[in-house]
Amino acid sequence: MEEKESIGVGLMGLGVVGGGVAKVLLERSDALARQAGCNLRLKKVLVRDADKPRSVTLDSSLITCDPQQILSDPDIGIVIEVMGGEQPALDYAKQALLGGKYVVTANKEVMAKYMAELLEMAAQEGVGILYEASVGGGIPLLLPLQEGLLANEIRAIYAIINGTTNYILTKMSSEGLSFGDALREAQQLGYAEADPSNDVEGTDALYKLAILASSAFHTTVRPDDIYCQGITSIGERDFRYAKELGYEIKLLAIAKKVGGSIEVRVHPAFVPTDYLLAKVDGVYNAVQIEGDLVGKVLFYGEGAGSSPTSSAIVANVIAAAKAIKRSEAMVTARRAVGAPAASVVGRLSNPAMTIKPMAEVETRYYLRMSIADRPGVLAQISGILGDRSISIASAIQKEADAVAQTAEIVLMTHPAREEFMQQALRDMERLPVVKEISNFIRVEG
Amino acid sequence: MEEKESIGVGLMGLGVVGGGVAKVLLERSDALARQAGCNLRLKKVLVRDADKPRSVTLDSSLITCDPQQILSDPDIGIVIEVMGGEQPALDYAKQALLGGKYVVTANKEVMAKYMAELLEMAAQEGVGILYEASVGGGIPLLLPLQEGLLANEIRAIYAIINGTTNYILTKMSSEGLSFGDALREAQQLGYAEADPSNDVEGTDALYKLAILASSAFHTTVRPDDIYCQGITSIGERDFRYAKELGYEIKLLAIAKKVGGSIEVRVHPAFVPTDYLLAKVDGVYNAVQIEGDLVGKVLFYGEGAGSSPTSSAIVANVIAAAKAIKRSEAMVTARRAVGAPAASVVGRLSNPAMTIKPMAEVETRYYLRMSIADRPGVLAQISGILGDRSISIASAIQKEADAVAQTAEIVLMTHPAREEFMQQALRDMERLPVVKEISNFIRVEG
Repeated sequence: MEEKESIGVGLMGLGVVGGGVAKVLLERSDALARQAGCNLRLKKVLVRDADKPRSVTLDSSLITCDPQQILSDPDIGIVIEVMGGEQPALDYAKQALLGGKYVVTANKEVMAKYMAELLEMAAQEGVGILYEASVGGGIPLLLPLQEGLLANEIRAIYAIINGTTNYILTKMSSEGLSFGDALREAQQLGYAEADPSNDVEGTDALYKLAILASSAFHTTVRPDDIYCQGITSIGERDFRYAKELGYEIKLLAIAKKVGGSIEVRVHPAFVPTDYLLAKVDGVYNAVQIEGDLVGKVLFYGEGAGSSPTSSAIVANVIAAAKAIKRSEAMVTARRAVGAPAASVVGRLSNPAMTIKPMAEVETRYYLRMSIADRPGVLAQISGILGDRSISIASAIQKEADAVAQTAEIVLMTHPAREEFMQQALRDMERLPVVKEISNFIRVEG
Repeated sequence: MEEKESIGVGLMGLGVVGGGVAKVLLERSDALARQAGCNLRLKKVLVRDADKPRSVTLDSSLITCDPQQILSDPDIGIVIEVMGGEQPALDYAKQALLGGKYVVTANKEVMAKYMAELLEMAAQEGVGILYEASVGGGIPLLLPLQEGLLANEIRAIYAIINGTTNYILTKMSSEGLSFGDALREAQQLGYAEADPSNDVEGTDALYKLAILASSAFHTTVRPDDIYCQGITSIGERDFRYAKELGYEIKLLAIAKKVGGSIEVRVHPAFVPTDYLLAKVDGVYNAVQIEGDLVGKVLFYGEGAGSSPTSSAIVANVIAAAKAIKRSEAMVTARRAVGAPAASVVGRLSNPAMTIKPMAEVETRYYLRMSIADRPGVLAQISGILGDRSISIASAIQKEADAVAQTAEIVLMTHPAREEFMQQALRDMERLPVVKEISNFIRVEG
């Protein structure tokens, strides 16, 4: 029987992650060959500028600026895409799949937007697209969702999946920094980009949540389906009250089955300090998955960086290599009996589920506002909340400003429907005694 | 091409876990068939006493007291072993493998003692033995070790893998209970057995560590290789000092590569309170795995119970069913070309590694002793420690007992070699000024 002794690998992108992947493939080739059952030979690396100096030293014959040197090479069975961005990455991934190649990608934007289409294309071609590295760096997340927990109905995911914002929130919480100062520190350490909006506005977390939710519920959850609010409006004072009330503030990505529909949202949230998620600090990520059999399981680790991401990519490359070897053996054997090749990967098999509009979501709320420091104000506020069936669980009034004659009041509500809370906020803003609604943060757990 | 429409499943054991597994297999048969690509048909359930009343209602035709009804049935392709204990579980597992059946087991004792032999037997027979449920209940642990993290060299595992002891230690820490009171509470809640020695002496954690370490290092780590100390000697006062010094006390299972050898040990340990492991409370389990690429990842969840364990077992059953379908297809196709069937599972492929003797292990130490309340005592103690090159990092002296003229002293050392510390302890015990060495706990992190 004829089996390939080695599988050609093409690498698209040689940035921080690509450099790490190349290093692992080259330096550990023996160990990886043992794991995969065949050699993984790095054949070509696509770069934009062949002359750019790089941290990883590669034989110049490996480097190319022409994507077809990878996409049209019949000896390349696995394409690793670590270029990032939507285009041309998406086109390359499709070309690779249509050319019968496995694709391993770290591209959250492409996977969040086109997962169903790409999985379908891969299944039709009898190959696969593997994307463990697109969420949570090296933490195995999709593997448990797709294999380890598949006897479960997944009920909810609560995740801290953006290291930049978690670093900023941790610094604000532990050192009392302002958002701006914490952001500057993150930028100096290389944890945040010069333009940090993709992280601090929640977009990065939103893409990752779309991938996690689609994988968990076996249905398409689109980025557009997800409510998203970043962390730019969180103030030092919010952390002070959060602590006083027994909470940390985290940017949570939440996907939750409620009846026949799903809630998907990214926003800052009060998390009780005794929850493990509240204790996830700095650039670390954590994903809590709730299954009906397993209960709550949590996966924690570094959510980014060259080495952790390479760990996930190379694991996927080995899985792809094993699948290639299996189907080669099958095809060779079947040539004699003329049976069709089996498809190798799953599609998103469940029918589309209704996405619950944010207006209908129920949570508890933390409200901080500046009010006139005189009797009867709380009665007016609780009147407005009461009109919307929102009841107050606790209230703190503090620090009267004698000159401006204002006080700060903090309210924690019982569970209430988002649309009623938004209406109440608008009504309260119109009250003459309310000087400012300073912040409004949802409470989980 | 001929493919089986359904795979017969035999269940050995119908206790708490077996009942849960039967329930999942019967109630979710449609969903599981979709996942596995074929029906999983529960054909027979082995019990000791057919007339015993049970929580799960099974058709009486399913029940048998004769193991051969499962082991000799050619229609049964997967045997689930949830009887527990070494025999006859081991014999049944071997018979099943030799009969060409996949085995899915939750049996930590059998896997800890016979993993290499069973994996070898399975590989020879072209089948597999899957044991995710033997460690950490439903938390996917072996799946990440065997697939998600396989590009890594695993450097260390720090694990809380016995829920009973973690419950007892949590109660002692949070409520100031004595060991005896916390144990009684655990027994009343069903978290500890009437004879709790298997848990509180560390044996259960030791078996699980043997499985984790063997799987992580791809080599045989035997239960006998593991140093083991339980939690029975931990006192309320130790918790008080631990808190004062910034630690929690946890029963840790540790496997660590140091140079060419491995350390494997189960013992109570001081864990810094800001470590995530220190925050794992109650019956929950957590396993921290350190890989050279991925850094530290942590997996957390319920480590026992019917539903979580069923989650792991049924995931393994589906994996076995997929492997059976693949090899059936391969065999059918290959009949024409006469190629041999590929082996399906891995053996422990690395050569045996040296187990570092406990005497050579280095950790920091916490020491609590009762001493004569007079000048110069600390000088004598630090002299003995100094003779063994053990230096003191901090000391607390407290609560002189005026009547007995004794004081309590607590020492934290810098890293020291276990054998030197043991020698120093013996020397100190002989000092007239030392009334009692009350406790001695290793410090990790």
